[in-house]
Amino acid sequence: MTERHDNVIFDTIAIYGVGLIGGSLGMAAKRRGLVRRVIGIGRSEQKLMRAKILAAIDDYTLDPQEGVAEADLIVICTPVRLVAPTLKAIAGFLKPGAIVTDVGSTKREIVEGCEAEIPEDCFFVGGHPMAGSEQTGVESASHDLFVNATYVVTNSPNTDLAAMGKITALAEAVGANVQLMTPDIHDAAAAIISHLPHVMSGALLQTAEVGQRELGKVFQLVAGSFRDMTRISASSPEIWRDICITNPDCIRDAITHFEAHLDKFKAALADRDEDAITRFFEEAGELREAYLRIST
Amino acid sequence: MTERHDNVIFDTIAIYGVGLIGGSLGMAAKRRGLVRRVIGIGRSEQKLMRAKILAAIDDYTLDPQEGVAEADLIVICTPVRLVAPTLKAIAGFLKPGAIVTDVGSTKREIVEGCEAEIPEDCFFVGGHPMAGSEQTGVESASHDLFVNATYVVTNSPNTDLAAMGKITALAEAVGANVQLMTPDIHDAAAAIISHLPHVMSGALLQTAEVGQRELGKVFQLVAGSFRDMTRISASSPEIWRDICITNPDCIRDAITHFEAHLDKFKAALADRDEDAITRFFEEAGELREAYLRIST
Repeated sequence: MTERHDNVIFDTIAIYGVGLIGGSLGMAAKRRGLVRRVIGIGRSEQKLMRAKILAAIDDYTLDPQEGVAEADLIVICTPVRLVAPTLKAIAGFLKPGAIVTDVGSTKREIVEGCEAEIPEDCFFVGGHPMAGSEQTGVESASHDLFVNATYVVTNSPNTDLAAMGKITALAEAVGANVQLMTPDIHDAAAAIISHLPHVMSGALLQTAEVGQRELGKVFQLVAGSFRDMTRISASSPEIWRDICITNPDCIRDAITHFEAHLDKFKAALADRDEDAITRFFEEAGELREAYLRIST
Repeated sequence: MTERHDNVIFDTIAIYGVGLIGGSLGMAAKRRGLVRRVIGIGRSEQKLMRAKILAAIDDYTLDPQEGVAEADLIVICTPVRLVAPTLKAIAGFLKPGAIVTDVGSTKREIVEGCEAEIPEDCFFVGGHPMAGSEQTGVESASHDLFVNATYVVTNSPNTDLAAMGKITALAEAVGANVQLMTPDIHDAAAAIISHLPHVMSGALLQTAEVGQRELGKVFQLVAGSFRDMTRISASSPEIWRDICITNPDCIRDAITHFEAHLDKFKAALADRDEDAITRFFEEAGELREAYLRIST
């Protein structure tokens, strides 16, 4: 296999949207020799020039149809709700055998939409590298962004196994730990592990604001835990609106489950039930140990 | 004023419980010349010897009555529910004019209890340096733990203003930003800013555990935000039980307010109300900016 011999997994890849994730993927793939050529596709020539200077891409074009024509892999790095529309716009210009993937934070709607748009002789495989941050833009991109990050690759009844294998190989080659799962499982799990924390951060800030108005002094007492728990609220409201609107039912379920645990704790407080309160914190500590073992 | 001239605020201070906070206070006061002598009081001679080697204290004793006899300031650094009982045990041995303070994370019960125990010719002033961490023990103590930390000093109708002024001077001299407030305001504000985040962390871990059992893959997807939001669950269950049991009503109120914001967000999700969802995240981002301006 040539790929093994010289590391190359894809000859030409096109990255549609060269920001933090897309730019990092280009850098990581180029530096490791996993691709021969990376084409950036975007709307701002200035940003694409910057991406080229930073060695995230080899070339760029403002014309998506031209950009995808020679690509063996197209990575759509747009906001989640533009992934399927983007695929629809380029579908007629894909090379036979081309693989299309995405990096969206929700998967069910994207995989459904993209599987409906992908041409017969091409393949779509959903992906979600969990390596974001509050940073955005190719300026924050890094060739080692994916090292030790979790990279979800989705399998659905329509997923081509060979295509899924190549996406998995690419993700592993840039240093990520690949987790294969269905889009539904991904969305339910991400609702708990990522989307719920985001909503919690916002609701905590709004609770503190009411307290600030009523008590006059709340923000003055901010310490480490509050800072840690609200850091993610620096992220883009539009990106998070789109994540929520493409995963609303799982997020509602996660909030409901979370509130049930809060209610149980409130009941223990009302009863001054010291054993139940102690157990709550003990269990939390044990669960934290457990996930640290699993996730690292 | 001699104090100004040579930095000394208290001649002799006794630190009852020389762990992270007590040890750091001893180190900070000694290094800055704010006290002439620091006496450590505790139950473990080994730990007190360690504290002396680390220059947190000058001397130590296992006998609280002996330890407080010469002290101008006694800093009670026990778990919150032992503060008033500790004061009760030493009250008969305090020097006339001695000031007693504490470092507990809740204030209403402690201030009430201590004001009932303090002798006529001595003074109690509640304190809460917000400089804790998951670390414990004098080994983690540092002379600059309080630099830029918030240090709440309480004023109640019974608080002696001169004593409050001296505690404030000490807290500022070790680098902290002092916030004066009533015990009630402190407890309501701390419930939101510190105790609620702790409960949220525990409830999030328990939600994730249910998800892990139902979906098989949740902890595998742990990323930065989840790690940040659950870090505090490494703290001692007993310490947090005591904090909760001495501030149950404020914490229940904080949870109830927090749940109201979650419910509003759930309703926006159910309605697919994109504007409300966007506004939720926008407001969160703006509030984060606002508290960063206030708290730093």
